Amino acid sequence: MRDSEVSDCLSSGPVGGAADGQAGRPGYRVEQDLLGKLEIPADALWGVHTQRAIENFRISGTPIGAFEELVRALVIVKQAAARANCALGYLDVERATAIGAACTEILNDGRYRDHFVVDAMQGGAGTSTNMNTNEVIANVALEMSGRCRGDYAALHPNDHVNMAQSTNDAYPTALRLAALLAIDPLVAALTGLAAGLGVKAVEFASILKVGRTQLRDAVPMTLGQEFGAFKSTIEAEIRSLKDQSAVFLQVNLGGTAVGTGLNTDPRYRRVVTAELAQLTGRPIVPAVDLIEATSDVGAFTLFSGVLKRLALKLSKMASDLRLLSSGPRAGLGEIVLPAVQAGSSIMPGKINPVIPEVVNQVAYLVAGHDVTITMCADGGQLQLNPFEPMIGYCLLSSIKLLTSAVNALQSKCVGGIVADTERCRYLSENSIGVVTALVPVLGYDMCSAIAKRALAEHRKVIDLVLEEDLLSKERLMEILRPEALTRPNLGGVRDEPPG
Amino acid sequence: MRDSEVSDCLSSGPVGGAADGQAGRPGYRVEQDLLGKLEIPADALWGVHTQRAIENFRISGTPIGAFEELVRALVIVKQAAARANCALGYLDVERATAIGAACTEILNDGRYRDHFVVDAMQGGAGTSTNMNTNEVIANVALEMSGRCRGDYAALHPNDHVNMAQSTNDAYPTALRLAALLAIDPLVAALTGLAAGLGVKAVEFASILKVGRTQLRDAVPMTLGQEFGAFKSTIEAEIRSLKDQSAVFLQVNLGGTAVGTGLNTDPRYRRVVTAELAQLTGRPIVPAVDLIEATSDVGAFTLFSGVLKRLALKLSKMASDLRLLSSGPRAGLGEIVLPAVQAGSSIMPGKINPVIPEVVNQVAYLVAGHDVTITMCADGGQLQLNPFEPMIGYCLLSSIKLLTSAVNALQSKCVGGIVADTERCRYLSENSIGVVTALVPVLGYDMCSAIAKRALAEHRKVIDLVLEEDLLSKERLMEILRPEALTRPNLGGVRDEPPG
Amino acid sequence: MRDSEVSDCLSSGPVGGAADGQAGRPGYRVEQDLLGKLEIPADALWGVHTQRAIENFRISGTPIGAFEELVRALVIVKQAAARANCALGYLDVERATAIGAACTEILNDGRYRDHFVVDAMQGGAGTSTNMNTNEVIANVALEMSGRCRGDYAALHPNDHVNMAQSTNDAYPTALRLAALLAIDPLVAALTGLAAGLGVKAVEFASILKVGRTQLRDAVPMTLGQEFGAFKSTIEAEIRSLKDQSAVFLQVNLGGTAVGTGLNTDPRYRRVVTAELAQLTGRPIVPAVDLIEATSDVGAFTLFSGVLKRLALKLSKMASDLRLLSSGPRAGLGEIVLPAVQAGSSIMPGKINPVIPEVVNQVAYLVAGHDVTITMCADGGQLQLNPFEPMIGYCLLSSIKLLTSAVNALQSKCVGGIVADTERCRYLSENSIGVVTALVPVLGYDMCSAIAKRALAEHRKVIDLVLEEDLLSKERLMEILRPEALTRPNLGGVRDEPPG
Amino acid sequence: MRDSEVSDCLSSGPVGGAADGQAGRPGYRVEQDLLGKLEIPADALWGVHTQRAIENFRISGTPIGAFEELVRALVIVKQAAARANCALGYLDVERATAIGAACTEILNDGRYRDHFVVDAMQGGAGTSTNMNTNEVIANVALEMSGRCRGDYAALHPNDHVNMAQSTNDAYPTALRLAALLAIDPLVAALTGLAAGLGVKAVEFASILKVGRTQLRDAVPMTLGQEFGAFKSTIEAEIRSLKDQSAVFLQVNLGGTAVGTGLNTDPRYRRVVTAELAQLTGRPIVPAVDLIEATSDVGAFTLFSGVLKRLALKLSKMASDLRLLSSGPRAGLGEIVLPAVQAGSSIMPGKINPVIPEVVNQVAYLVAGHDVTITMCADGGQLQLNPFEPMIGYCLLSSIKLLTSAVNALQSKCVGGIVADTERCRYLSENSIGVVTALVPVLGYDMCSAIAKRALAEHRKVIDLVLEEDLLSKERLMEILRPEALTRPNLGGVRDEPPG
Repeated sequence: MRDSEVSDCLSSGPVGGAADGQAGRPGYRVEQDLLGKLEIPADALWGVHTQRAIENFRISGTPIGAFEELVRALVIVKQAAARANCALGYLDVERATAIGAACTEILNDGRYRDHFVVDAMQGGAGTSTNMNTNEVIANVALEMSGRCRGDYAALHPNDHVNMAQSTNDAYPTALRLAALLAIDPLVAALTGLAAGLGVKAVEFASILKVGRTQLRDAVPMTLGQEFGAFKSTIEAEIRSLKDQSAVFLQVNLGGTAVGTGLNTDPRYRRVVTAELAQLTGRPIVPAVDLIEATSDVGAFTLFSGVLKRLALKLSKMASDLRLLSSGPRAGLGEIVLPAVQAGSSIMPGKINPVIPEVVNQVAYLVAGHDVTITMCADGGQLQLNPFEPMIGYCLLSSIKLLTSAVNALQSKCVGGIVADTERCRYLSENSIGVVTALVPVLGYDMCSAIAKRALAEHRKVIDLVLEEDLLSKERLMEILRPEALTRPNLGGVRDEPPG
Repeated sequence: MRDSEVSDCLSSGPVGGAADGQAGRPGYRVEQDLLGKLEIPADALWGVHTQRAIENFRISGTPIGAFEELVRALVIVKQAAARANCALGYLDVERATAIGAACTEILNDGRYRDHFVVDAMQGGAGTSTNMNTNEVIANVALEMSGRCRGDYAALHPNDHVNMAQSTNDAYPTALRLAALLAIDPLVAALTGLAAGLGVKAVEFASILKVGRTQLRDAVPMTLGQEFGAFKSTIEAEIRSLKDQSAVFLQVNLGGTAVGTGLNTDPRYRRVVTAELAQLTGRPIVPAVDLIEATSDVGAFTLFSGVLKRLALKLSKMASDLRLLSSGPRAGLGEIVLPAVQAGSSIMPGKINPVIPEVVNQVAYLVAGHDVTITMCADGGQLQLNPFEPMIGYCLLSSIKLLTSAVNALQSKCVGGIVADTERCRYLSENSIGVVTALVPVLGYDMCSAIAKRALAEHRKVIDLVLEEDLLSKERLMEILRPEALTRPNLGGVRDEPPG
Repeated sequence: MRDSEVSDCLSSGPVGGAADGQAGRPGYRVEQDLLGKLEIPADALWGVHTQRAIENFRISGTPIGAFEELVRALVIVKQAAARANCALGYLDVERATAIGAACTEILNDGRYRDHFVVDAMQGGAGTSTNMNTNEVIANVALEMSGRCRGDYAALHPNDHVNMAQSTNDAYPTALRLAALLAIDPLVAALTGLAAGLGVKAVEFASILKVGRTQLRDAVPMTLGQEFGAFKSTIEAEIRSLKDQSAVFLQVNLGGTAVGTGLNTDPRYRRVVTAELAQLTGRPIVPAVDLIEATSDVGAFTLFSGVLKRLALKLSKMASDLRLLSSGPRAGLGEIVLPAVQAGSSIMPGKINPVIPEVVNQVAYLVAGHDVTITMCADGGQLQLNPFEPMIGYCLLSSIKLLTSAVNALQSKCVGGIVADTERCRYLSENSIGVVTALVPVLGYDMCSAIAKRALAEHRKVIDLVLEEDLLSKERLMEILRPEALTRPNLGGVRDEPPG
Repeated sequence: MRDSEVSDCLSSGPVGGAADGQAGRPGYRVEQDLLGKLEIPADALWGVHTQRAIENFRISGTPIGAFEELVRALVIVKQAAARANCALGYLDVERATAIGAACTEILNDGRYRDHFVVDAMQGGAGTSTNMNTNEVIANVALEMSGRCRGDYAALHPNDHVNMAQSTNDAYPTALRLAALLAIDPLVAALTGLAAGLGVKAVEFASILKVGRTQLRDAVPMTLGQEFGAFKSTIEAEIRSLKDQSAVFLQVNLGGTAVGTGLNTDPRYRRVVTAELAQLTGRPIVPAVDLIEATSDVGAFTLFSGVLKRLALKLSKMASDLRLLSSGPRAGLGEIVLPAVQAGSSIMPGKINPVIPEVVNQVAYLVAGHDVTITMCADGGQLQLNPFEPMIGYCLLSSIKLLTSAVNALQSKCVGGIVADTERCRYLSENSIGVVTALVPVLGYDMCSAIAKRALAEHRKVIDLVLEEDLLSKERLMEILRPEALTRPNLGGVRDEPPG
């Protein structure tokens, strides 16, 4: 990126960065903060605060740049602030324009993410993330203006990019926005899964099978109903994600350090929030009480619970798919999952339900992340929660992992599921549970006797009923029609939809 | 309770209970199920299924009767079912009336709760709870009709009280209703707490103090703002509980065993749900997909998360109260909590923050319950989740404990908090954080220099500014007015409310 | 309990309790602390500190007396302290004897537990529990000496019973001892379960069945091996409980308020710990660093993890039992669990695996308690962890619940399990997994081809091998002998035990 | 890596890989499995099974190669198996030697880790990880022998590298070994931290300060004692890690698919385990019951609890450091943490405790991982737990993160902590808690009166005692000597070490 210019900057003598023209060793420039001078790699768009954080936080190895939505959100917050500061007359048009252009550049070119280098696991309540963002934007703006990296007199990461902000309002606002951005692909993935389940619900609509409660044979249903229930539950989650993500629309931007708005213009919070809404196309508003909103992380704990509910539904579905496809000979075997890889080196021909298995595991990690978020939330003290970086890490990781898992579940598994109609029919006809449908006709006691005898003698309920001449074959078949067994079946009002 | 009649029943010979007039040993009657005959204590209103469950589940020692709302909810569900079955012509008016009257009696007289004896921790997906309810209602109805306990030919727990129901729809519906009933006192408690915090916010409105982020002195605020933020956060929880509890209004009643509605009239689900809505005065509706709703416990996992968010906010507030009141000499000491008991035998005069401490602990139990509910939810298989009893135990316990803790927090602690105005003022004046307010006037660099010198020389910022003649005393005092320090302070638009 | 004497005490005028002979209303006596005077029920063995705590902590409704082992442990700690204080010359023989006798009385007569009334969920780091214990012991001792309740001048709960102790050392020590006492019945229950599983392992030793991995048919094993593995895993837990409970043998008794041992004799910690060891018959020793030991709750967090491991193994076993017994027709159906209650009102003849289901649920509560303990542990600050009461509540509840669940699992389920030998044999013979045993003879490729064809044509592996004349029937039967299929089968060294 | 040879292989015509000499598109080679043919990048050392897994598991983006210890462990297991198979005569010397040499090469050259490409979050119980390992070893061995990648007729990933193994024994064994390898650096980090804390304990040995319980001023202690307790608790964790990691020494290698050892020689499990012990220098032994050991993940759940205990201790210490260093003016301010980065853009001069804050957060992630592991453990079914990959991911991540956090805590924080002796002294002298030391001399009542008056009148205890002439100045000073206040102080035996 503009390597020639960079070396111009470095060779151009005593101008330099914040550290008064000290050029540093070859390949480095020197910047300075309260703790002293520090060498920065010459091609780095970050500055001294980021550099210190790199050295302080060698924890996870995962940089914040790995979270694309977070980077985007941070940049958009800075863009909104620059606009608001300009509109209110605190930032000159030239600098505001330069910041805005740099933000647009970063949003448009994914390569800049490589300069968001601070470890995602960090102390300081997000200060290092905020500083990293300020510095990258400043240096991109400087470069775009034909100036050198580090020429902060012209455009300062702190005084100009961070104007009227504190990490304590800019960072939590960006985290909320990042969550909103990340939820969209998850909703899209779930929409695809729901559609895929719907296809199977239709495909399997006429396959009668045994319903099971507590792993015991219960009453009949169709395989289509079973997949229809999966579809319903995913559709409920899509609605839930959409509804509950509204919790992120209330932001504390404008509260600065503790929510009082010290060193802001009274109009600022409204103006900057409106800019944010305009830039994102989302109805973002200021929180009711910015002091409360600055220390509170309730939006994250709540939404983590929402994600966990989704994860648990996916996990239950994955477990059901594994159970229904168990076998091939000594299990339930009602469905066959697509074979996506060989299952065993030692056992020829074994195929495992690997996709549902990874879905379960992702769900369990999401549940673990929820506990981490819980403990982070509990650690808030007085006017701030210093553990928001880990909250962000867990929440954004959970959303991304769920998105991947849902996409894999649909594309590698659900889409290719085949029913073993014969097996479903066999188990269903063989099941004692159908006797339940005879209770309204033959009575509970008679049915109990039939059930007992069927179990003891390894007979079918149908055969015993006919053998005992309890019902005519026609009547029996009428009662045991699949469409009668799988919906409300009493009284004459048969035409009401089954719900 | 009607002891003379009971002994009449036992001595009256061959009528007896389900077990064909076998009187059993003195003090017992005999009932029978598929597994055989069993002695029931003569004065018990429960029957054979409950008796077996008593013997099977000697786990926690806590009977379901300990959960008043659950008992009420179960009885109301039965009442609604009886009405619906009567309205649709499946249950005769006499029996429906008897069941209805028994339900009313149980709802009105708390002593019947002693007959809801099954251990709250049970297998069977709530079957034993459902059976216990059916049996108590049947026997109360029998007694009220002048019949003997166990005369199930006249009114059967199963055929009549449980008509058109399965445990799998009646029990989850009752659990949802129980949660709704239990939330009301919690909302009331929170309303009281919010009001109490509001009183303190007003009382402390003019007390300037140090705001703290990451346990470091930050910028000034008022103690009233701090308590106002507590109030805001509790008010948000009241709204959250009210909004999110709507998740319990969708019930699967009418789905019977697996949600298909087998052995119900197609009109039943609508009618019974309408009766339930009418009896409770709540807009209860059938779930969108009863098959999904029968196995899904998402409402509980979601609401557990909602409770956990509340718990975490209470815990954070409790921790803040402990921290702000720390001392009396070697802590922050900005507030004094009311002394409610001696704190130590070995240390004369020590008073501890015992009420906030119990609030923290309750919050942590709620967080633990959330994990238990998570694991129970994950254990759902195919058409049912067999672990709903534990889900109910944890959810209802959490609600009750939070209610108790919130009530204690307001009545034993918040209501009596006193500010140490002098201490707040001293720490505030002494703090270096006020220098932040001078940044717009003196610039960041000058302010940094002042801050450094103040820290190094143990001086006050104000004194240094005056000593260096950087600002006139009047100007300085104008800037450092509490009302300027604790709200947006730039520009001329001072009259906008601070939000 | 000595009611006449009590009324003597109350009517005898100006002697009275701590509150200087004020008799209070009828049925009450008056005691006093720093906060003022308070009425105590006349028949209560507790005093003013307990009474205040009753009023402060109306949280769970579960008194500490519900935890028998905790009460015993507290009393034993007091007994040890009295002995040590007497031996070192700080407590006169008469009072020491009186305290010792009262302790013995309380240990021998369970009714005194009704006087341990403080709510198990309490603030104050156990102070109220400690005070309750001191007061009951003092009053029992006073009564046994023919004195009145509340005559603390003669024997003081604090000065004498609590001598040389702080809650901060006495309570954590008692919690550790309570855990040790509670573990014994759990180990006994597990020993019974392991034996029961061992019986089944022998009973089922020759039943060949399909081993399953990832719910897919794998290679053969015996049902006896499966139950033998259950037995092995429980035996490992018995060893684990015994080994890991040693963590409770290090106590901080003698550290007093913060672990420095202020206001104790330097010999005291050794002497009192030795008394504790002697009274309990357990090798209890002083912790290495009493200051560390006073604030640290690592013993509890560790042991909670140990309990969770046990819980998870029980849960896995319970899930396996439910899965193996699934059916009766449309499941695996390899074993039949004893029927202990009817499973459904709506489905005639349905029997559910209710005992394993309650085991799962208890396990999940234990896992939830572990999270609660985790959060409590994290809340320790500086020289103390104020949340030990909740840690104790969760830990002791978990131990008790596990004990109940294990006992139920053995007595109501495992002991009565019956194998469906025919079903096991059928599934095993029908399974394709046996082909794995032919790999060393026929090669992986040939075996893969056989497996594919068997699956596609719904044929048995054996039939195909014979049909293709790949092996003689004798050779095939030799390879497929159960004893060959279910242990290391290569080479000539057949006589080595399979381990 | 031998690029010329690779192109030779690709251009050399019909030899090819498993897919019969089909060269594929330029830059690819073709391999084949039961599902068909697949293109592999020509420079990849992995094969068809890995390639399928890459496409199936696009979940976390983190490859297994990111876990160095896991890769090492897998390779060592393969090495041990090759040696055992050779020793027992099942694998020819040439192939065994080739496998051994390839393993050594991979262990010595970190670049091969780039070929362990399967996503760390995967279904299939580790099959893909095992296959990836088999394939890389085979291809490295082939290359080292001058053969082409994919020439599996010469050396087969499955038949030779995986000989006598199943994923179900090789993978869990490797996970255990990986944990053992990863624990060493953690122990080293903790050893450094303990040493650093010890240095501070000595440095601060004579600084008297207020001990605090429940955030209230308690009795005196030294700052050295406080840091000494930190040291003690870390030393306990070092012992704990060493002791508890023994749980990983029992492995199920030799059990093959379900633990029965099918298709192994009876001597194999002993021989291969002995090889493993020899290669690692660790006393690895076969598990007691290989069937149990194949499905059980208790070693991981237990050790996760051990890690969580460590995490919680670190978190408590981090919180204490943040609290003790709070201020600089309006907090406790007893210690000063080294400044490692600027704390705020908006507040000049603010320095935050960023290193302890990241320690807290890592601890909370470890606690979350423990819940994930718990849920994975609960999901084991019958003869296997399919969720071991996530267990491994969480466990190994936790160990690595703790190692990083501990190193940062020592190098960036503890090592540079400075005491504010003056502040400690001031708070200590000013504290009312010292009155406790006067109780043995003046009595509890007198001391209570002094405490009350001191608090009310804002006076010092010392001044009041002298003013009231209760003790001579000499006597008082004698009692309040730091060495008397901070250890057992009664009786004449002063020379016993304080423990």
